[in-house]
Amino acid sequence: MSMLFPEKSSEPASQIVDGKIIDGKGIARALTDQVGREVAKFVEQGNTIPGLAVVLVGNDPASEVYVKNKAIQTHRVGMRSFMHMLPQSTSQDELLDLIAQLNANPKIHGILVQLPLPAQIDPVAVTNAIAPHKDVDGLGEVNAGRLSLGIDGIVPCTPLGCLMLLKSVHEDMTGKHAVVIGASNLVGKPMAQLLLKENCTVTVAHIHTRNTKELAREADILVVATGKSGLVRGDWIKPGATVIDVGITRVPAENGKTRLVGDVVFDEALPVAGHITPVPGGVGPMTIACLLHNTLQAARATQAVADASS
Amino acid sequence: MSMLFPEKSSEPASQIVDGKIIDGKGIARALTDQVGREVAKFVEQGNTIPGLAVVLVGNDPASEVYVKNKAIQTHRVGMRSFMHMLPQSTSQDELLDLIAQLNANPKIHGILVQLPLPAQIDPVAVTNAIAPHKDVDGLGEVNAGRLSLGIDGIVPCTPLGCLMLLKSVHEDMTGKHAVVIGASNLVGKPMAQLLLKENCTVTVAHIHTRNTKELAREADILVVATGKSGLVRGDWIKPGATVIDVGITRVPAENGKTRLVGDVVFDEALPVAGHITPVPGGVGPMTIACLLHNTLQAARATQAVADASS
Repeated sequence: MSMLFPEKSSEPASQIVDGKIIDGKGIARALTDQVGREVAKFVEQGNTIPGLAVVLVGNDPASEVYVKNKAIQTHRVGMRSFMHMLPQSTSQDELLDLIAQLNANPKIHGILVQLPLPAQIDPVAVTNAIAPHKDVDGLGEVNAGRLSLGIDGIVPCTPLGCLMLLKSVHEDMTGKHAVVIGASNLVGKPMAQLLLKENCTVTVAHIHTRNTKELAREADILVVATGKSGLVRGDWIKPGATVIDVGITRVPAENGKTRLVGDVVFDEALPVAGHITPVPGGVGPMTIACLLHNTLQAARATQAVADASS
Repeated sequence: MSMLFPEKSSEPASQIVDGKIIDGKGIARALTDQVGREVAKFVEQGNTIPGLAVVLVGNDPASEVYVKNKAIQTHRVGMRSFMHMLPQSTSQDELLDLIAQLNANPKIHGILVQLPLPAQIDPVAVTNAIAPHKDVDGLGEVNAGRLSLGIDGIVPCTPLGCLMLLKSVHEDMTGKHAVVIGASNLVGKPMAQLLLKENCTVTVAHIHTRNTKELAREADILVVATGKSGLVRGDWIKPGATVIDVGITRVPAENGKTRLVGDVVFDEALPVAGHITPVPGGVGPMTIACLLHNTLQAARATQAVADASS
């Protein structure tokens, strides 16, 4: 992965409140702006406009919002956005047929199938049907293997975003002890592999871990991705540690409305941590920004192959 | 390795000394015998005889011994063994052509390219050219991805062997803290993923880790794969822990000859550990046994696909 902030961001240091809060929103905006400039340059050079196809099956309202946001952002950075909204009753074969068409379409450089899928469709079969060079979510077996083996590939958006946030406060993570709480294919496992690639000592804790609190307290870098709001308390954090909170849960608020909270009790963690991401405005905004980054990377790789064979 | 199939020996001492020493030699022999019986049954059922192709490039004497042993063992369990010995000067394209032929050959179910390869050949390109269902070393990106994602695939032989040794003394590893020292693609990383799949809390330590000794002392399960003989001393081990020593180094012996030692100082570790593998006779013999196991698995998978489509 090439590093992503060669250009100085125009955002002032005031974005880092108290010197501690990592401004995911600002960093995501800077990355998105950078992708936009690079897309413009890429197209100016005579290359095909990068295109991202997003596929939604069914009518889950949250998924509809995500998909719409992805389409809007894609369009904003100057890429082509293709939306495919299929009915809930879609069969696996129908979906696989669509993916085969998208794989073959030279205008499309990235394909994202919004999860979760209806019960009649096997998400593993679908994810692995996406051509690896168009798998901009990085969730297929080939890209997972490349990440595991430390060879170039497409890295899943959320852990990639977390890594960028970590790099915004750590020039070098070599030898740091990183503890990842949560071992999902989407976040925890790829995150652990990215941290290993950065030469961190890496511990993965999860639902079966007996002493999660004690392990967390050993972490120089703590990444929490469990979906259990409020799991990590202030006394779970080593003084000065960097805390990345991937969790995002909607809970009732005192005013009778709702609010979004993370897996970390932010107010308790803030005085102890060296750096910490807020929820919302931390990891969340990075995910779409990284999707755009991955799509541009995929378009470049396709172009490089085309150039080499022409 | 020539001792893998001795006559029934009357040396109970080498089986389990003090109830602590994990008898890799015996477990490997039992696994090999089992593979042999299953191959016989598979062929009786009218299936193609499983076939393993081993490719050696160059004349490294150690590699020649390994390859010869693999061929002999393959033949002994009733499989077909194909040897391809290419000159040191072989080009990458020539090797890739051979792999393409082996991929297409229905008599061959497993392909193993002995590492290391000469400098003019990229081992990543070669490993990934092997069809994933014939990649019995499990080192290609597709099988690495499957392991990482927790879906069925072919698991690299050495970590698979370590897992089997662990299972010989642990019925259930859920919640145990496993520490893996060494983060290679060949052993450390796939080992960590296997242990995660067993619901262990997993820490990966390596050359950049600052407090390896302290981390090792937290391990209920300690897997050492560094190639640094004598790295792990008695006081690195938590009393009662299970220690798996993957290292194997030839060192001068007192009698003027040489002997094989592991990464763990065995005599110091033995009184502290709950269970420990010796070197030699621990992990080593498991690797070829697991290769045979993987080849049979590959033949079965190929047959299942053929049966489904006929």
